[in-house]
Amino acid sequence: MSVSTAALDPSVCALLPVLGRDVTVPLVTGGEVTYAALDYAASAPALQRVWDDVAAYAPYYGSVHRGAGYLSQLSTDLFENSRRTVAEFLGCRAEDQVVFTRSTTDSLNLLAAALPANCQVFVYETEHHASLLPWRNAQVTYLDAPRTPGQAVETLERALADRDPYGPALVCVTGASNVTGELWPVRELAAAAHAHGARIVLDAAQLAPHHPVDIAELDVDWVAFSGHKLYAPFGSGVLAGRADWLRAAEPYLAGGGASRKVARRADGGVDVDWHTTAARHEAGSPNVIGVHAIASACKALTEAGFDNLVAREQELVSRVREGLAEVPEVRVLSLFGDDAPRVGVISFVVRGWNSSHFAAALSAEYGIGVRDGLFCAHPLVRTLLGSDPQEPGECGAPEAGPGERSEVGVPPAEGRGRSLNAIRVSFGAGTPDEHIDRFLRAVLDLVREGAQWKYRTEDGRCVPDRGEAARV
Amino acid sequence: MSVSTAALDPSVCALLPVLGRDVTVPLVTGGEVTYAALDYAASAPALQRVWDDVAAYAPYYGSVHRGAGYLSQLSTDLFENSRRTVAEFLGCRAEDQVVFTRSTTDSLNLLAAALPANCQVFVYETEHHASLLPWRNAQVTYLDAPRTPGQAVETLERALADRDPYGPALVCVTGASNVTGELWPVRELAAAAHAHGARIVLDAAQLAPHHPVDIAELDVDWVAFSGHKLYAPFGSGVLAGRADWLRAAEPYLAGGGASRKVARRADGGVDVDWHTTAARHEAGSPNVIGVHAIASACKALTEAGFDNLVAREQELVSRVREGLAEVPEVRVLSLFGDDAPRVGVISFVVRGWNSSHFAAALSAEYGIGVRDGLFCAHPLVRTLLGSDPQEPGECGAPEAGPGERSEVGVPPAEGRGRSLNAIRVSFGAGTPDEHIDRFLRAVLDLVREGAQWKYRTEDGRCVPDRGEAARV
Repeated sequence: MSVSTAALDPSVCALLPVLGRDVTVPLVTGGEVTYAALDYAASAPALQRVWDDVAAYAPYYGSVHRGAGYLSQLSTDLFENSRRTVAEFLGCRAEDQVVFTRSTTDSLNLLAAALPANCQVFVYETEHHASLLPWRNAQVTYLDAPRTPGQAVETLERALADRDPYGPALVCVTGASNVTGELWPVRELAAAAHAHGARIVLDAAQLAPHHPVDIAELDVDWVAFSGHKLYAPFGSGVLAGRADWLRAAEPYLAGGGASRKVARRADGGVDVDWHTTAARHEAGSPNVIGVHAIASACKALTEAGFDNLVAREQELVSRVREGLAEVPEVRVLSLFGDDAPRVGVISFVVRGWNSSHFAAALSAEYGIGVRDGLFCAHPLVRTLLGSDPQEPGECGAPEAGPGERSEVGVPPAEGRGRSLNAIRVSFGAGTPDEHIDRFLRAVLDLVREGAQWKYRTEDGRCVPDRGEAARV
Repeated sequence: MSVSTAALDPSVCALLPVLGRDVTVPLVTGGEVTYAALDYAASAPALQRVWDDVAAYAPYYGSVHRGAGYLSQLSTDLFENSRRTVAEFLGCRAEDQVVFTRSTTDSLNLLAAALPANCQVFVYETEHHASLLPWRNAQVTYLDAPRTPGQAVETLERALADRDPYGPALVCVTGASNVTGELWPVRELAAAAHAHGARIVLDAAQLAPHHPVDIAELDVDWVAFSGHKLYAPFGSGVLAGRADWLRAAEPYLAGGGASRKVARRADGGVDVDWHTTAARHEAGSPNVIGVHAIASACKALTEAGFDNLVAREQELVSRVREGLAEVPEVRVLSLFGDDAPRVGVISFVVRGWNSSHFAAALSAEYGIGVRDGLFCAHPLVRTLLGSDPQEPGECGAPEAGPGERSEVGVPPAEGRGRSLNAIRVSFGAGTPDEHIDRFLRAVLDLVREGAQWKYRTEDGRCVPDRGEAARV
């Protein structure tokens, strides 16, 4: 196939135009092509609007909460107005707190540190690690992967009803899977949790960029999300929800900003009076640029209208699924089945291919950025692949060398790499048609014709072997 | 006095030009003036170079450590190269780890969470809260404020020698005070710590922007600093130093990126194999923009040359100190005395003035941004002011209404605000002469003539009362 290098038609980016939409990358086969960013589930590019807002503010940056100068006061107002914008975006209740963190991972670690004594936590094994692992000081019940949304609710109800002792409990659930994109029955799970005296936190990392999230309407106790998946990759995240556990907890970080008064005691010790507002858990100088970026993204999504965004994204989801369905070698991973509603996050494996090799070829030969691996959701991906849980993969880096083409699920004979991983394509409402078209053509092309180049492993990455074309 | 609104002479910003150097702010007395940012100790503006580097990278932003696409790999390289840049900037030893955090506060909380069992911590009461408060799970000895650098060493040696049991110990010390700017005898303290079998962490939040910091040469075990004080305000910070305690500790945050392998056990639980590199404590998607910004600032400082930077800054320090010395009503706060070496951080009180009122007038009438308060170092400021430790102030917001002019140290008769706080002016090598000139003229003017406007408290801030000129 030939890849078009024509400039992008601006009309296809009418919704949510992103920074870097005209960036070109070199192809191993020669020439350059506009980069097709299809790894939104890991990190989305900044919206142009977010970047413009950050750039407009940056010269006015000043210390937040701490200075008497004009720019400090402007920055403080911007910071606190951003908190109000996020509260509106999430439909927060009057008594909810919005705490700025660095990411969803950080938000859930904060909540984990704020659990009351003897709190039991219930979490599905299908969660990504940010939701699965933070509950280190609690008694955790891992729930088996359900195969229907209804089964998810039943599993939870049974586990909550059986718990002993019947004390405080928290359910942690993702709104949309970072592997399959499938939506979880959040409202029903919240009702089940509350019916059994438990609370629930919604991991909206993959949901908030794609769907409206209304904390009051869903009746969840907390919501967590990240800026970098919400088109605002400037190092901030959010935990929003009920104030009581947060107010009662030890400050997440100890330091200035969280401390209201500090004084030495007569006995030589130190007394600290901590804030009881969101500042309690925000010690240190706030990342006002990151927080401003999140607020800007919230406004941009709201103004674009989630009806429009969902409609456009669902059109893309359908095209990807229909396109992949035409390739018999491709198996799309799913927990809840073909008809389950989902966001623009789709994982698959290709028979006869090592996923790292496939992803590397998509990048090097087609300028398409996807992700391969276990997506920081090892138990879920292994359940979906049906692979041996004793062959776990790396998280945070491609684990496998390319090997030759190898049967997925069967380690290559030479042991040059495992193939127990998958490929994930993910996108948003602003993704141009051309990126999806190119991706589907590339999948077909690779499966039918093979890669044009040879690949090898270098520093743990699968990279094209510059000297070697595989087919000419 | 009249404030010049002439455009800034570019030659005065030859060193470290910052973003926003031509920003103008309105004066309550009419007209606009370029903003004099003199609150660097809270947050420094971004270097123009840092902003340019961030802007050049932003369109190429991609998921770090996680993607197969070209921009993901570019971003991963940028992130890991930034780690090497920071290691070089700090003169790290081969075996040191550089962990990216969100700030100094975060870095020291991370180290606090990594202390070995039964570790004793020794910290001076003069530290700011980020260094004073994180040691919540340790037995902390607070050392009284020394009045000379030699006394600091003696106090520490005595406390370390007396400790019982003689187990693991950590000393935490600031390199330059965030209140007085005075330099602490880091090398001598490190030698004392090591001689008594303790380790030492250097809080370089206020030192690194002003002075070279060489971890090997100072022989400290760890260094912490923040991007936002180092002209890189994009939400990242650094903890660099010995790997052993960090490797042995539980991961700071639990989640993806920190976890190498995750698998369910036969008994229903979950086994996690954590990374032992810096990634162990960097769970969640890294803030690559923030980290890139720090690396850019490190390069800019290195290329400008610390010899030049120190010489220029010391010239400004001398001018401020000499200028303030000419105003008998001004008392500069100092722990180690007039001759002590210091960076561009100077705090003072003005007889007859509430510090919040004074700082508000500097802002509203002269376009100068300083900070008033207790600077998140309550015990130190109270020691320096000699005020009643039972009257602690707010941290993170101006605590006091303006009141009328009031004697510092004596609450105003009407109880409209406390005056138990100070004013801090802080700057860097790139600060233009004009800002310093304007500041010194403004201090003299306010002390001799009084404020031109009346002020009142609104939402905890001291603001000009728009209707009321105090002198015409």
